Amino acid sequence: MARRAGGREARRAARAAPLAEAAKPVRPGHSGGQYRPLSDEGVAAVVDNAFRILEQVGFADATPHCIETCTAAGAVLGDDGRLRMPRGLVEKTLQQARRNLTLYARDTRYDIDLSGAKVHFSTAGAAVQCADPENNLYRESTAQDLYDMARIADTCEHIHMFQRTCVPRDIVDNCELDINTLYCCLMGTSKHVGSSWTLPEHLEMSFEMLHRIAGGEDAWRARPFVSQSNCFVVPPMKFATDAMECLRVAVQGGMPVLLLSAGQAGATGPAFLAGTVSQAWAECLGGLVYVNVIEPGAPAILGAWPFVSDLRTGAMSGGSPEQGLLSAACAQVGNYLDLPFGTACGMSDAKFPDFQAGAERASTVLSAALSGANIVYESAGMYASLLSVCPESLLLDNDVLSGIGRAVRGIEVNPRTLSFDEINQVCVGGEGHYLGSSNTLQVMQSEYVYPALSDRNSPNVWEETGKPVHLEQAIAKKREILAGPAPRHISDELDAQLRAEFPIFLSREDMGL
Amino acid sequence: MARRAGGREARRAARAAPLAEAAKPVRPGHSGGQYRPLSDEGVAAVVDNAFRILEQVGFADATPHCIETCTAAGAVLGDDGRLRMPRGLVEKTLQQARRNLTLYARDTRYDIDLSGAKVHFSTAGAAVQCADPENNLYRESTAQDLYDMARIADTCEHIHMFQRTCVPRDIVDNCELDINTLYCCLMGTSKHVGSSWTLPEHLEMSFEMLHRIAGGEDAWRARPFVSQSNCFVVPPMKFATDAMECLRVAVQGGMPVLLLSAGQAGATGPAFLAGTVSQAWAECLGGLVYVNVIEPGAPAILGAWPFVSDLRTGAMSGGSPEQGLLSAACAQVGNYLDLPFGTACGMSDAKFPDFQAGAERASTVLSAALSGANIVYESAGMYASLLSVCPESLLLDNDVLSGIGRAVRGIEVNPRTLSFDEINQVCVGGEGHYLGSSNTLQVMQSEYVYPALSDRNSPNVWEETGKPVHLEQAIAKKREILAGPAPRHISDELDAQLRAEFPIFLSREDMGL
Repeated sequence: MARRAGGREARRAARAAPLAEAAKPVRPGHSGGQYRPLSDEGVAAVVDNAFRILEQVGFADATPHCIETCTAAGAVLGDDGRLRMPRGLVEKTLQQARRNLTLYARDTRYDIDLSGAKVHFSTAGAAVQCADPENNLYRESTAQDLYDMARIADTCEHIHMFQRTCVPRDIVDNCELDINTLYCCLMGTSKHVGSSWTLPEHLEMSFEMLHRIAGGEDAWRARPFVSQSNCFVVPPMKFATDAMECLRVAVQGGMPVLLLSAGQAGATGPAFLAGTVSQAWAECLGGLVYVNVIEPGAPAILGAWPFVSDLRTGAMSGGSPEQGLLSAACAQVGNYLDLPFGTACGMSDAKFPDFQAGAERASTVLSAALSGANIVYESAGMYASLLSVCPESLLLDNDVLSGIGRAVRGIEVNPRTLSFDEINQVCVGGEGHYLGSSNTLQVMQSEYVYPALSDRNSPNVWEETGKPVHLEQAIAKKREILAGPAPRHISDELDAQLRAEFPIFLSREDMGL
Repeated sequence: MARRAGGREARRAARAAPLAEAAKPVRPGHSGGQYRPLSDEGVAAVVDNAFRILEQVGFADATPHCIETCTAAGAVLGDDGRLRMPRGLVEKTLQQARRNLTLYARDTRYDIDLSGAKVHFSTAGAAVQCADPENNLYRESTAQDLYDMARIADTCEHIHMFQRTCVPRDIVDNCELDINTLYCCLMGTSKHVGSSWTLPEHLEMSFEMLHRIAGGEDAWRARPFVSQSNCFVVPPMKFATDAMECLRVAVQGGMPVLLLSAGQAGATGPAFLAGTVSQAWAECLGGLVYVNVIEPGAPAILGAWPFVSDLRTGAMSGGSPEQGLLSAACAQVGNYLDLPFGTACGMSDAKFPDFQAGAERASTVLSAALSGANIVYESAGMYASLLSVCPESLLLDNDVLSGIGRAVRGIEVNPRTLSFDEINQVCVGGEGHYLGSSNTLQVMQSEYVYPALSDRNSPNVWEETGKPVHLEQAIAKKREILAGPAPRHISDELDAQLRAEFPIFLSREDMGL
């Protein structure tokens, strides 16, 4: 008994020591692709279908700049006003397109490498409500919520970038909204930030802020630390005018763009999943043509984000199993084309972090991650099919994402891990168990991930500790983070300059500064 | 607007009509294998390692019958008392072993076909506590709990067989325990039943009951509707004497056996996942050798169920991501060897159906299912790392399993589903959306699954309906099922005979009869 207790103490001590980065069981960018929802023939048929859609169906509502530049490159404007893209043009685009894209962060430790099938997790969303589990209510989301969530995500190891999660409904003016959305994100986290803009002029003003923060335009262009999530298309196959202009300004300003096609199967996409995947990819490739016509090799993430309609009501169902399938299939196509790819998964239909939410979040994110999506957007925080966001959930989701990261990392098979010698030694005249084995002590931290908030206690310990409730622990942790010192990702001096030049909504006091 | 509302009405009406079995979006036995956690070389290395373990390490504590029959077939008993199985013997076993196994149910609609990578979901477990979410407490599990859970599972479309979930702690005598466990399962459901036995004499008595229920031994042997979950091995690589005798009696009596290796990585298996997968498969193959020596081609399910230890405490962690990886890798090996295969996933470390539970259940079951496990045992109901079972959770889990079934079914790609003509027609001069498309109406039920209890309402409807709580709806549904008429899977007349011959614990009144 003493001997076993000694082994347990040694394990506890080993566990308490800080982990070297390389020894961590889960790191950003493990490679997916072990899950292939489509057959090889299926992928090829979908890609071929996308080519055909671009060539024969084309896009309505192209902007004058898009028409002028794309037709010069080989696109064809039909008498029906649709801009069609012949296969040759799309194939040329695929040759030009930027690969091995890195999304930079102000803190270089958070740079994320989107090459190959490397998988990362991001928030995202345009929630208009904040889910408040403490008071069992939904209320309009605010700028303070957004800043708070950026701060929380900044502490979450497995949320690798922070894309705007909610619309600050307390800001009326659209320009101020865009500026403050960006500002709140950048104040809260030094990870890569994603945001959206409603009009190109707002983006131009934002560039001034970004150059100021970067220390000049050259420094910004060398390491752009903000990307633009851009819904350039209104599915099916219709360009969105303002978004196309925002896209153009972003590309010209050196900002990476997420080319976002967000159709809904059965409503703005075909009801058949294979059709919706095809249309989403056709739309994204059309956006990629335009980006590469503006600037060959400009940084772009293909964002085939087809959503699911619950066809009984027409409402979106973000937590449906079909969502996991759609996103995973889109990711598989992204790997096939070897393009930087992001999709959306993790959106729950539940209203709060409950059993349904956990199941929907984990199963859909796992699908997209194992299939090798470079970024799984919406993978933390989202409820009510994107209508709401729950700040506390970011902390719960961080545990879920750590587990999914571990799944993506997979199982290393080599003579050491196969453990034949260890098995032989333990069984034949050995101790008959592996508890004290040197391998066990050495790999307990590199082979296994330990969640921060999940409960692994025995029923006895659970009872003795007052039957703790998982969600309440997340609430307490959120309070602890927000009561702590505010981050200084932007110096007080620079913040004073920004406040002098831009219409900043939250006071320094609001922000805990 | 009127037109859209008409479309909605049509969709509602279509949804309300009963679905033909073949049109259902999720059916039992969709084929997995789209997820392959191991590379091809990895699988081959693991299998080779298992052969080597069987040949060089072998098993301790073989029974006299096992030693006699296996050495006659080519196994070697060493001076150290270990029974070693040369590669040739194991390869011969793989040739003899039963493939394309069907597990029969008393209701033939519930027969399950374990050929190829066809996936099914089952309960399982030996919980000693019942998690009671109504009263936020854990208490000892009883025979009534087991019967009630069999009844609930009987109503769950996506739970394809019912294996004993808990130990009736209110039955003291081990023989009565085994008999009543079997009886409670068979009274509650007409699906295939799995159970366990502590001693071979109890199994022999149970066969008398089974013959009686089947209408004679021949009828039982023609369609054995109960399988035995048998922990024939105490990992690492040591046979369990009583279980080996139960195994022998089962095989001789025509009962399919689940050859269950339930080691714990880092404790009774190597800490490296690849090592634990190898050891588990070596153990299962050793059991398969014995089964086929007793009777070539006897029905057996390979049950490589390696569990995970939380190495900080040594306690099992059923909800860990490593559990999903281990089970999925074991299933991949099962497909590679083309053997009927079952593993365990879905076990949560949480104490009740909460966010953590949903995430752990869904992510681990999805992993095992997508990798093609023929049966995912433990996929419903289990909490506290198998120490407890929650009856209400079966109903929540049924929704999770329906979604996972949909994921396994995957995406069909063919000219119709690629939807090119539909996309072309809708976009070019068409309505610009797919809501009224004939495809949408036709496939809304075959392409999409609609959960029974999950909440997909908008926040407004959710508020208007009093903010329903998911778990409370499961509690209400459980009460409704148990308050309804008791099933008559066994006629009153036959039950009277059984009660005359066997020590039945629950009264007919207890059982609602």
